[in-house]
Amino acid sequence: MYNVALFGAGRIGQIHAANIAAHPDCRLQYVIDVYPPAAQALAEKYGATVVSAEQALDDSSINLVAICSATITHADLIEASAKAGKAIFCEKPVDLSLERVERCLATVKECGVTLMVGFNRRFDPSMAQLQQSLAAGEIGNTEIVTIISRDPGAPPAEYLKTSGGLFRDMTIHDFDMARWLLQEEPVSVYASACSLVDPAIKALGDIDTAVVTLTCASGKMAVITNSRRATYGYDQRIEVHGSEGMLAVNNLPESSLVKSDIGGVVAQKPMYFFLQRYADAYRLEFASLIEHLKSGKAISPGGEDGLQALRLADAALASMNSGQVVRL
Amino acid sequence: MYNVALFGAGRIGQIHAANIAAHPDCRLQYVIDVYPPAAQALAEKYGATVVSAEQALDDSSINLVAICSATITHADLIEASAKAGKAIFCEKPVDLSLERVERCLATVKECGVTLMVGFNRRFDPSMAQLQQSLAAGEIGNTEIVTIISRDPGAPPAEYLKTSGGLFRDMTIHDFDMARWLLQEEPVSVYASACSLVDPAIKALGDIDTAVVTLTCASGKMAVITNSRRATYGYDQRIEVHGSEGMLAVNNLPESSLVKSDIGGVVAQKPMYFFLQRYADAYRLEFASLIEHLKSGKAISPGGEDGLQALRLADAALASMNSGQVVRL
Amino acid sequence: MYNVALFGAGRIGQIHAANIAAHPDCRLQYVIDVYPPAAQALAEKYGATVVSAEQALDDSSINLVAICSATITHADLIEASAKAGKAIFCEKPVDLSLERVERCLATVKECGVTLMVGFNRRFDPSMAQLQQSLAAGEIGNTEIVTIISRDPGAPPAEYLKTSGGLFRDMTIHDFDMARWLLQEEPVSVYASACSLVDPAIKALGDIDTAVVTLTCASGKMAVITNSRRATYGYDQRIEVHGSEGMLAVNNLPESSLVKSDIGGVVAQKPMYFFLQRYADAYRLEFASLIEHLKSGKAISPGGEDGLQALRLADAALASMNSGQVVRL
Amino acid sequence: MYNVALFGAGRIGQIHAANIAAHPDCRLQYVIDVYPPAAQALAEKYGATVVSAEQALDDSSINLVAICSATITHADLIEASAKAGKAIFCEKPVDLSLERVERCLATVKECGVTLMVGFNRRFDPSMAQLQQSLAAGEIGNTEIVTIISRDPGAPPAEYLKTSGGLFRDMTIHDFDMARWLLQEEPVSVYASACSLVDPAIKALGDIDTAVVTLTCASGKMAVITNSRRATYGYDQRIEVHGSEGMLAVNNLPESSLVKSDIGGVVAQKPMYFFLQRYADAYRLEFASLIEHLKSGKAISPGGEDGLQALRLADAALASMNSGQVVRL
Repeated sequence: MYNVALFGAGRIGQIHAANIAAHPDCRLQYVIDVYPPAAQALAEKYGATVVSAEQALDDSSINLVAICSATITHADLIEASAKAGKAIFCEKPVDLSLERVERCLATVKECGVTLMVGFNRRFDPSMAQLQQSLAAGEIGNTEIVTIISRDPGAPPAEYLKTSGGLFRDMTIHDFDMARWLLQEEPVSVYASACSLVDPAIKALGDIDTAVVTLTCASGKMAVITNSRRATYGYDQRIEVHGSEGMLAVNNLPESSLVKSDIGGVVAQKPMYFFLQRYADAYRLEFASLIEHLKSGKAISPGGEDGLQALRLADAALASMNSGQVVRL
Repeated sequence: MYNVALFGAGRIGQIHAANIAAHPDCRLQYVIDVYPPAAQALAEKYGATVVSAEQALDDSSINLVAICSATITHADLIEASAKAGKAIFCEKPVDLSLERVERCLATVKECGVTLMVGFNRRFDPSMAQLQQSLAAGEIGNTEIVTIISRDPGAPPAEYLKTSGGLFRDMTIHDFDMARWLLQEEPVSVYASACSLVDPAIKALGDIDTAVVTLTCASGKMAVITNSRRATYGYDQRIEVHGSEGMLAVNNLPESSLVKSDIGGVVAQKPMYFFLQRYADAYRLEFASLIEHLKSGKAISPGGEDGLQALRLADAALASMNSGQVVRL
Repeated sequence: MYNVALFGAGRIGQIHAANIAAHPDCRLQYVIDVYPPAAQALAEKYGATVVSAEQALDDSSINLVAICSATITHADLIEASAKAGKAIFCEKPVDLSLERVERCLATVKECGVTLMVGFNRRFDPSMAQLQQSLAAGEIGNTEIVTIISRDPGAPPAEYLKTSGGLFRDMTIHDFDMARWLLQEEPVSVYASACSLVDPAIKALGDIDTAVVTLTCASGKMAVITNSRRATYGYDQRIEVHGSEGMLAVNNLPESSLVKSDIGGVVAQKPMYFFLQRYADAYRLEFASLIEHLKSGKAISPGGEDGLQALRLADAALASMNSGQVVRL
Repeated sequence: MYNVALFGAGRIGQIHAANIAAHPDCRLQYVIDVYPPAAQALAEKYGATVVSAEQALDDSSINLVAICSATITHADLIEASAKAGKAIFCEKPVDLSLERVERCLATVKECGVTLMVGFNRRFDPSMAQLQQSLAAGEIGNTEIVTIISRDPGAPPAEYLKTSGGLFRDMTIHDFDMARWLLQEEPVSVYASACSLVDPAIKALGDIDTAVVTLTCASGKMAVITNSRRATYGYDQRIEVHGSEGMLAVNNLPESSLVKSDIGGVVAQKPMYFFLQRYADAYRLEFASLIEHLKSGKAISPGGEDGLQALRLADAALASMNSGQVVRL
């Protein structure tokens, strides 16, 4: 049985709490949050107890922590948990600083504990099936990965201020998908980006529209297009072109209803909200971690994946700022 | 708070148990099953207690019963529950005999309790949205309802023996959908049917392939096509043609992955299993019942809906047997 | 080289004229029409000559006639052409009277000439591919054929008066498709129909909305749904369910453009006009006739196909009028 | 009436010949080809005459020339035709050398004749509708144009030798589409490319797989992905993301038949051959030229479009060779 201490009772913490509580091999034991009423409400819902971080980490019955608190707390909590010998799930990113991530991962390694980083998309059933089909050679050798990733709307300026910018906050998921599907590390990054969506984003020095090209030594490429806006919903598509065919994951519509009339043949928009689109992914992500803990199944994505995705984000930023290609 | 006694710990009982346990206004109190280990396992999973039917109905803290046991027990349990003053959810059908259903509904009426009959498809998000669009006049007046309903495979002969036959067991869902979408009772039924799928079905005197036409006084029609076989998955489609357009609910694929290669452009099959296809429907069905109990929202589908669907099933059987149209 | 005399310079005659003129093995020699200016204009366009019917049939260099004139003239022209030893293409129907068709076909048989009846849909590339896939056993044994056939709008009352009614004018195409795909003659017909679209149609004693069920001795069935109205374009779909799968022909959209915005994901409507939807079919139909004449490839559809489709139409009418199933 | 002299009786010349001959305002007068039997066969088919280039250009009754001969002859023929005062249609490209194109266009300008360059895709009905929807503001301001363009297979090495390379031969169409849809000239080009498809292509120093990013001063971007291979057919898709929505042109399947069975839901592959995919585009392209000549409708695409697309191709090549972004 895995007794879990959950850090962070916000939106994403609530998702993980529900999945932990529903998992037959887990018990949600503790909830920790800087805002006590939030911790209390979540704890009550699942029969857990509100404690301090110290109490949770000191309790030897806790063998797994789930870190869903603010980004700024991630690296410290990972290190403390690792030192306490707990297995760790941490929402992305480990940290916004490469150097801090490297130090943190070194600690995790020293302590010999498991660390899963929350790149949830790898567990989306369609994306996972795409990756398995690729790995099984169904379309031969991968040649071009095309990732279209658009949020339905921009987050509030307050959030963006501490987000690390588009590449580290949003594209980082796409960098992870690109690495996962290319199965080879990119050797160069080129990013062209600007702010077309919201003057508030521009005012923050951030961007909202980007095209990023990743090139591998073998010649394989990935191209990512991002926008902080999509009037038609959350746009999450990936296609992989290979020597023997193409695999594509399309959007999931809100329902399968289609209306045909004088105005056209109107299907439903893609699901609008990421928590709806990736509800299955969050559940399967946690289940995969438990399977790793139980049976030694390889952990994926691990800390190294978080680090490499951040490296690509930093390179994209450098490329955009310099207007030139960045070699890795 | 609704304290629920669940009758039946089988496949469908387990679905409802999970939805009851997850509902914020419900508590799964008792599980009753003729096979004690099944009852015990399900009760343990959700912190409920195994009791006898009498104990459950005698407990005044129980204000809702969910009947998921064998068809043959439905009518008796409904009557006993009604007399005990409980609100009732009952899986379809109320009974295979029209006369028995009528008597049972009379008892329910006398006792003044709520009865919801489990025509789950009304709660499928796509189907519900179709019906709401129709009701909102989005395609003008309904003219033809086309229902395609095919099971991925035939049930075992053992089940079929007591199923009441294709029309009462499988088409009954389609009759309910047709009535719900036509918003007018059919005045004639014509059924052409035979056994093409499985000699075992023919040997039982049952059929596995059918086309049924329902005609209303206004001229509106519905046509249902059924098969006990669909190699490509559970085929559940409905389209409604109206004076100003068409609304169609298509199948839900198992994932959104599409592979294009020399063999064609291959999308995923429709979900294979009805519990997967209608998982949301079962959840929303139960939620709708609770909303009715809490706020007086109209109950739908009620006992009368169960009765009318069975009338259509009986008429279809009579039509098939006589080879002629049956007037209602 | 086939020297063709074309009877009828109207809308459908113009289509065939273009296909005849473009065919490498054909020459459009004569155009005959009761309205001389129409004949003249069409003849000029393709370097043909306007003549009388007698002149055309007396000219021994003419070895093929194409009959695209008014329905009432078909049977007489077929007989006269047959007696003159010409190969014959005739637009559907041969005649609206079964007895007249039988007499006409007897004459054709005596004269030993080729007669192709213009059921153009058999030559639509998608429909033809469906039939070939069926014939190749790709989905095992056929079980249910579902034909959805809706015109974008009703023809003028003037046309409807002499059309023979919905079943003989419009459904006759669907009866031909059903026979072609069932590969077995139906033994019973049930038609439920009414007028919902246009009071003018009702005033003429005709119908505009119908559901027809055809049943074969083996148990195979076909169900046809018709409407004289479809706000979203010409709706022409067929699906065949078999023991090992399903084959479906969907509509062809006017273009492949799709717009996604706040209102939904909007694809183009199906092609609106039958001459656009079936442009390829008309061309391939004529090419198939020429191939038959050149190489002895079996003629399909022949006069017998025209006769059988009319028999089904008459049976549907009798069923609708009696409210009962009609045995054949 | 436009009397046309056609240079080049090869594959693409035959397409244009058919469209010229079928156009009500045109007559195919002369066919010129270095290989006399090809010229003869094509001329006979449409009642034209085989002549020399000089004869054709000296004949004052010829008011339009269509240049479909080898690329190397284009610029000379354009200049000679311009000096002879003929209106000119020329297949892309005008020339592979920017300097030569500029000189040629200067001559055309001096002579004051019409020149249309054969970027056929602008006339594809779906692409044209996309561009009209954009121009009508249906999705607000354009933000990202995504062009996926893959040939079903690589051309023979013999052809590739004189093709000018992937960017000038194949991507040039995509550069034209990008310019046409961006409605703003790119200010920078980045190309990442390699040879993954065919060692013969690599041996020629050419590439077969590419990702190109175009960035405009306003921030708008276009991304093009190319491959000389697509096992599933000719892959020609464009999507434009704008401030208020998205417009996408999808592939056209070979037919609308879909087969569902145990292996999945299998739709037809995209049309394999460019002459089939763009048959309508070629016809409408020529019709648009004639409309320009008759009514003064603006010519599009003109020589300047050919020049700008070539500039982008040269910049892409320079970017690939230098591994850096190229500013324009």
